[in-house]
Amino acid sequence: MSADSVSTRLYPAGMLNTLSRHEVERLTDASRGDLADLLRRCALAVLNSGNQGDDAEALLARYSDFKLEVQQVNRGLRLELDNAPGSAFVDGRIIEGIRELLSAVIRDLIYFDSEIRGHPHHDLTSSSGITNAVFELLRNAQSLIPQVDPSLVVCWGGHSISREEYDYTKVCGYEMGLRRLNIITGCGPGAMKGPMKGATIAHAKQRVGSRRYIGISEPGIIAAESPNPIVSELIVMPDIEKRLEAFVRLGHGIVVFPGGVGTAEEILYLLGILLHPSNANVPFPVIMTGPRESAAYFEQIDRFIRLSLGDAASDRYEIIISDPDKVARRMAEGLEQVRRFRIENNDAFYFNWLLRIEREFQIPFEPTHERMAALRIDPGLPTHELAANLRRAFSGIVAGNVKPDGMRRIREYGLFEIQGERDIMVALDELLASFVHENRMKLPGGSAYKPCYRIVS
Amino acid sequence: MSADSVSTRLYPAGMLNTLSRHEVERLTDASRGDLADLLRRCALAVLNSGNQGDDAEALLARYSDFKLEVQQVNRGLRLELDNAPGSAFVDGRIIEGIRELLSAVIRDLIYFDSEIRGHPHHDLTSSSGITNAVFELLRNAQSLIPQVDPSLVVCWGGHSISREEYDYTKVCGYEMGLRRLNIITGCGPGAMKGPMKGATIAHAKQRVGSRRYIGISEPGIIAAESPNPIVSELIVMPDIEKRLEAFVRLGHGIVVFPGGVGTAEEILYLLGILLHPSNANVPFPVIMTGPRESAAYFEQIDRFIRLSLGDAASDRYEIIISDPDKVARRMAEGLEQVRRFRIENNDAFYFNWLLRIEREFQIPFEPTHERMAALRIDPGLPTHELAANLRRAFSGIVAGNVKPDGMRRIREYGLFEIQGERDIMVALDELLASFVHENRMKLPGGSAYKPCYRIVS
Amino acid sequence: MSADSVSTRLYPAGMLNTLSRHEVERLTDASRGDLADLLRRCALAVLNSGNQGDDAEALLARYSDFKLEVQQVNRGLRLELDNAPGSAFVDGRIIEGIRELLSAVIRDLIYFDSEIRGHPHHDLTSSSGITNAVFELLRNAQSLIPQVDPSLVVCWGGHSISREEYDYTKVCGYEMGLRRLNIITGCGPGAMKGPMKGATIAHAKQRVGSRRYIGISEPGIIAAESPNPIVSELIVMPDIEKRLEAFVRLGHGIVVFPGGVGTAEEILYLLGILLHPSNANVPFPVIMTGPRESAAYFEQIDRFIRLSLGDAASDRYEIIISDPDKVARRMAEGLEQVRRFRIENNDAFYFNWLLRIEREFQIPFEPTHERMAALRIDPGLPTHELAANLRRAFSGIVAGNVKPDGMRRIREYGLFEIQGERDIMVALDELLASFVHENRMKLPGGSAYKPCYRIVS
Amino acid sequence: MSADSVSTRLYPAGMLNTLSRHEVERLTDASRGDLADLLRRCALAVLNSGNQGDDAEALLARYSDFKLEVQQVNRGLRLELDNAPGSAFVDGRIIEGIRELLSAVIRDLIYFDSEIRGHPHHDLTSSSGITNAVFELLRNAQSLIPQVDPSLVVCWGGHSISREEYDYTKVCGYEMGLRRLNIITGCGPGAMKGPMKGATIAHAKQRVGSRRYIGISEPGIIAAESPNPIVSELIVMPDIEKRLEAFVRLGHGIVVFPGGVGTAEEILYLLGILLHPSNANVPFPVIMTGPRESAAYFEQIDRFIRLSLGDAASDRYEIIISDPDKVARRMAEGLEQVRRFRIENNDAFYFNWLLRIEREFQIPFEPTHERMAALRIDPGLPTHELAANLRRAFSGIVAGNVKPDGMRRIREYGLFEIQGERDIMVALDELLASFVHENRMKLPGGSAYKPCYRIVS
Repeated sequence: MSADSVSTRLYPAGMLNTLSRHEVERLTDASRGDLADLLRRCALAVLNSGNQGDDAEALLARYSDFKLEVQQVNRGLRLELDNAPGSAFVDGRIIEGIRELLSAVIRDLIYFDSEIRGHPHHDLTSSSGITNAVFELLRNAQSLIPQVDPSLVVCWGGHSISREEYDYTKVCGYEMGLRRLNIITGCGPGAMKGPMKGATIAHAKQRVGSRRYIGISEPGIIAAESPNPIVSELIVMPDIEKRLEAFVRLGHGIVVFPGGVGTAEEILYLLGILLHPSNANVPFPVIMTGPRESAAYFEQIDRFIRLSLGDAASDRYEIIISDPDKVARRMAEGLEQVRRFRIENNDAFYFNWLLRIEREFQIPFEPTHERMAALRIDPGLPTHELAANLRRAFSGIVAGNVKPDGMRRIREYGLFEIQGERDIMVALDELLASFVHENRMKLPGGSAYKPCYRIVS
Repeated sequence: MSADSVSTRLYPAGMLNTLSRHEVERLTDASRGDLADLLRRCALAVLNSGNQGDDAEALLARYSDFKLEVQQVNRGLRLELDNAPGSAFVDGRIIEGIRELLSAVIRDLIYFDSEIRGHPHHDLTSSSGITNAVFELLRNAQSLIPQVDPSLVVCWGGHSISREEYDYTKVCGYEMGLRRLNIITGCGPGAMKGPMKGATIAHAKQRVGSRRYIGISEPGIIAAESPNPIVSELIVMPDIEKRLEAFVRLGHGIVVFPGGVGTAEEILYLLGILLHPSNANVPFPVIMTGPRESAAYFEQIDRFIRLSLGDAASDRYEIIISDPDKVARRMAEGLEQVRRFRIENNDAFYFNWLLRIEREFQIPFEPTHERMAALRIDPGLPTHELAANLRRAFSGIVAGNVKPDGMRRIREYGLFEIQGERDIMVALDELLASFVHENRMKLPGGSAYKPCYRIVS
Repeated sequence: MSADSVSTRLYPAGMLNTLSRHEVERLTDASRGDLADLLRRCALAVLNSGNQGDDAEALLARYSDFKLEVQQVNRGLRLELDNAPGSAFVDGRIIEGIRELLSAVIRDLIYFDSEIRGHPHHDLTSSSGITNAVFELLRNAQSLIPQVDPSLVVCWGGHSISREEYDYTKVCGYEMGLRRLNIITGCGPGAMKGPMKGATIAHAKQRVGSRRYIGISEPGIIAAESPNPIVSELIVMPDIEKRLEAFVRLGHGIVVFPGGVGTAEEILYLLGILLHPSNANVPFPVIMTGPRESAAYFEQIDRFIRLSLGDAASDRYEIIISDPDKVARRMAEGLEQVRRFRIENNDAFYFNWLLRIEREFQIPFEPTHERMAALRIDPGLPTHELAANLRRAFSGIVAGNVKPDGMRRIREYGLFEIQGERDIMVALDELLASFVHENRMKLPGGSAYKPCYRIVS
Repeated sequence: MSADSVSTRLYPAGMLNTLSRHEVERLTDASRGDLADLLRRCALAVLNSGNQGDDAEALLARYSDFKLEVQQVNRGLRLELDNAPGSAFVDGRIIEGIRELLSAVIRDLIYFDSEIRGHPHHDLTSSSGITNAVFELLRNAQSLIPQVDPSLVVCWGGHSISREEYDYTKVCGYEMGLRRLNIITGCGPGAMKGPMKGATIAHAKQRVGSRRYIGISEPGIIAAESPNPIVSELIVMPDIEKRLEAFVRLGHGIVVFPGGVGTAEEILYLLGILLHPSNANVPFPVIMTGPRESAAYFEQIDRFIRLSLGDAASDRYEIIISDPDKVARRMAEGLEQVRRFRIENNDAFYFNWLLRIEREFQIPFEPTHERMAALRIDPGLPTHELAANLRRAFSGIVAGNVKPDGMRRIREYGLFEIQGERDIMVALDELLASFVHENRMKLPGGSAYKPCYRIVS
């Protein structure tokens, strides 16, 4: 692979090929304004697709003279690249798949900016308005394919997992691929890549015609976790919450592999939704799985969920240890239930309209002292509200321990005060401590875990 | 074919399959409001597709209890049909092609109403805004297909032509089909159907993979001229002017068969555009053709054009009599020129962006006495302005002779006064008289042609 | 269409593209030997495809200087055409569909000659050997397509039928096409073309993806009945009996339209097979149908069958008059039964292995006085044997009345002597007389029908 | 992956689906006769596809109760498997790709046995007869695809190569895949798998539609080197010489990776053909390549070729060290030359008819003392004859050193006597010694290399 940089002009792929002159004008305007930097960084990430080991900052530094310009020509849109990573090109021509990923980045970023945000048809403050925006972004990305049976399995899990865990995700992907299931992940390495890699081999062996390897990213993540080369459909959602909603509305089931605190937070997000009474009858298979070595991770999470949300909460997931064949079989059975449910309820296969997602799951939670103090961790709450609050508390505590912003707040204003039931908070503490112990949450400077909050009542 | 009526529910085809809930809401609202009657009439026209011999009013009368309802279900849109023409169904199931035509009607009427008219991104008063709307309607109809060489030939001509003329259009369509050209017409019988029928046989013989038989209609016409069964893509533009613009921007060349005054008016529209100095270098093959018996029709038109617009105007078209093979060969050569021009100018193959169409060609001309008096038919004008004015004068005079509204105006306010150069006006008179003589313009009650205007200077 | 002749070289289509050098050698040898004239005549027939109104002799006379040479070049086979009919070409290039038909002729004639006849694996004297040859010819023509549900309807009937009858075959084809059925006929005009034409329109309206219009011909017929332009698959079987077997093994059901004595003979052939006890449980829908005007034709045939073979024989067919919708519905139901039967019996969908065809139906019957005298028309015989004998008697009597060879024999050796049961023979006489009366059998010189046989006992 | 064995019945894929009853009979007969054991062993190899680390004998031992039966049912062929490796199945159903590989084994073994060997059209003793058989086997395997530009690169090299060498073959495959080249290898691991694996990733990134990963094996090898899971087309040629001919006639160019003596022998085979004067003008790109660490291997081979065959011989290959990008670029350029040559000479793209292969390269060479003594290694010979003799000498000497049969002969009858030119023989000795030194040729018991021949003159 050539490491030299390449400068060239190219036409984008897909629907960017048939834009009206007005749309091209809006796009080129946007690409030169506020979006310019975001576009440039995301474009660089996908141009670097497949070159692992780079962190986002190093990448930006190495290609500091990389430039992307969106130009209008008679027939529509043209991209001018200056000093782009040479590995994206063969004999001076861009690799087709990278051209598609690059087009996807432009398509999604600009579509949201010029067609959704500030558009009179779109209300991004209401729950149904946000769901609607998620739908239109997915449709614009041509990811909503009618008349295809449910087959999309979301795989969650950590990016930096052990070799055993990575290999396990590959075998699970392989077993799911043998059953003709398709994979959605969040882009990047680790548990995001393994299942796709395994499924690729299995799909080839099963001679599957239409294979989908969907990566759903967002601007804050994509630079650090550039899409692995297997991703055939890239969708860049505008923020974390819409990305999460895209996972659960586009996917038909979820497999959770071992990860860190991020994965734990995603589990709480998911339970917060699935435990909502409106969703009680909506089938949605969730399987937590890992190799023998990772059994403890899921035991701890399971224990915490049962203690805090009650045993009934565990009905919404199944834990399978070291049995990829069973993981795939159970998921295939779950998808068949999804299929039947959608037919009975006249719902689309390609978008989970019937899943109720409350507004609080759709908007960002920024953990300030005020917001943390306002949280109630109270077993008397409806389970889904408690789950939502736990997710936030969890998120805030993680921030207070490891994120620069959160740590600064703790330093300046003291510990968070949380109105929390003691047993639950103790369990949460133990969970975090075990993550630290297992190297799944890295404390700054390798210090020991120390709670950044205190319980008030 | 069963003549009984059928009541049923069905899901639409194509992009109506993946609408967001908000879009479905807007659609169902629109379908119950002002659009309801328009929708019902157009839907009835396509449900009756292929059943010739019906005039619009008779059709509406026969199916007076036909109802169409657009409904929202979980997965999107559903149509409920009551008492629909039985010929659109087989064993109770709608014929797939008719389902597509029906979906196209709903798609186009509602898209314009809910996404273009009154939408902040769209300015339907400016020239570029109108062109943009035409583009978006065509794209929404999935008629803009990138990376395909120019092959779309628009066929114009009359609906009620002689058997010889009809057979001639079939052979021309056949010869063009043998050269893998595709056909666009305005829907309906006569010269709108013959070329498609001929091309179908030729495409089958040439084993052409992607065959297109595009019908472009508009709400005022479709009921009287329902799409013939060969039409594979139906586009319903919101009005006559946008329909004309769709013809010249989507099509790559035009063949004009014999017709009546409508066809003559279309020729003047076309020349008004092609003679604009900005379009001097834009290749656009125009061939007028008919069988031996129809030679006179084109001679008269040719004579009138040369006299009024100058011999140079005739450079933009070629008249070929009784030689379908040559028609097809010349058109294929012309399209090759179009192809090269678009490449050189970096223009799209699928939409003629570079053709300049002035605003006066994009908005309706209603022939009142004031507007007719304001027209100047003056050889001193730039040719394209003179062509535009001639088209209007022509349109007004035809209205004054045969259209209820125009005839009433003449009765009430007397003859139109036109500031016209005498020679041109005399030639125009002769042209109209010859149309009457040849039965191409039917005067009410079979009366003799009598000018409805007088020349002032 | 250009009428001038064209000389050119071209490469064949399909499997003729990948022949080994040895095969090419055998082919070119064969094409220069005995086969040369046969090839030339058949090639001329397909090059003339779609030009109706030509009889075979006139065609051969008009293109007396037409030459076809099969040449060997490095990569395989090349054809050199001299003075070929210009209508097969566009701008000097052969029409793709005609290239395919031409290739089919060469493929089938030479395959039989070089790979089947005289080949140690093939025994053309045994029943199973003949069936095997039919199978291999069809497979070599790539007409055996696995895993497709039964949909092939054979249409039999006359070539020169009345306008009403022709239009009726079109509507029946249309109704069958609406139900996604495909058509097999014997090539040529009349009832061979109508159903294909109707089905083409219906398939287009139903947006059917894989449409098949199969023509099965044989060398003695193809020149007189050149494939109509809709035929997409042409198969040239080596003789009449193999052609008949191809119809019943490849087709899943049969529709019989009005015809002449040929059609009547085909009906007797079919009943002779279907009444064989081994075939009692093999479903095979047979529908005889025509417009109101043709009701008498089928009444006569029905009466004759019931009288000669018994009422039970009529269980194997259904007569439907003037109801194309019902014809198509009943045929679709019949094919569904065929589908279920093949699944239950583990038989292929693409070839009717389970139908028993006795050797006497597979070898030609030449009506000499000896053979006619040996026939027994005896109600005491098993029904299928009686049907076989009736077919032969019928065939011999028709020959004695209208075929030059048969008429000569009668002149030279006197009347045929047939050991026939009187009632049956009288009924047969009446049937023939009615055909003459209805102009379905033309006697030489317009003479009255006079039996060419006498009954002995 | 389940390790349990599975018993089931299944239908084969591809052309085995449309066999005549006679063919099925011949197949089932053959499968029960002499072929039975061969079939069983080859079938077991492909059922075990993808499970590395098994040697052939261990595999056979582990599945000693595996049975394969070819059965005739109404519709054709059915396979009955008893105690087959469970890894070939998912939830009791065979993996589609393995079903295809299994069908390929049956197809090829039986086709040769029943349609070529002993068949009057085939003469397996003449050069053109053998080439013809190779062609028909490839065509029957549907590997000859007309109208596709040359893109098939044969990759040769060792099965047990170092990690660095294996990774290098992957990167070369990747770079070739980026240029849309396809891969042919001999099945199995090492240099047979790496290029396919790399090309798979590259093809996915380039969104290549029709990807080919062809494995050409033969019965003696397949059990030990079961097709890796990427192989999408498996061809089992009847013997080693026909397998070699298939490589050079189907492939358009060859990349040689490091290997052992087998690879060296293949290089001599190739040069023996390419140096034939008839092939002087036939372009055939040959690239020898490896990572930096393997430079010595090719240096030694190059030195030996130049010394024995002359510097001119080295014009037919290019050595590229540690530059996969260049390997792929040069190969792509070479294939473009092949393309132009075939067009100019009217040769097929899918089969290299114009390459002359002498009969001595098409029949096995068994190294007896007599045959070794008859060899002449004489610089005065025409180069291609010398190359052929060197290949045989080389083959014999290797046998004498490492193969049980060859070692036994040396023990019994003493050293081979070769009429060899001293310098060449010394060079050959050095080459073998260096292979031993580099662990590319393993001597029994790890003994030192000792010539098994002596030079006579």
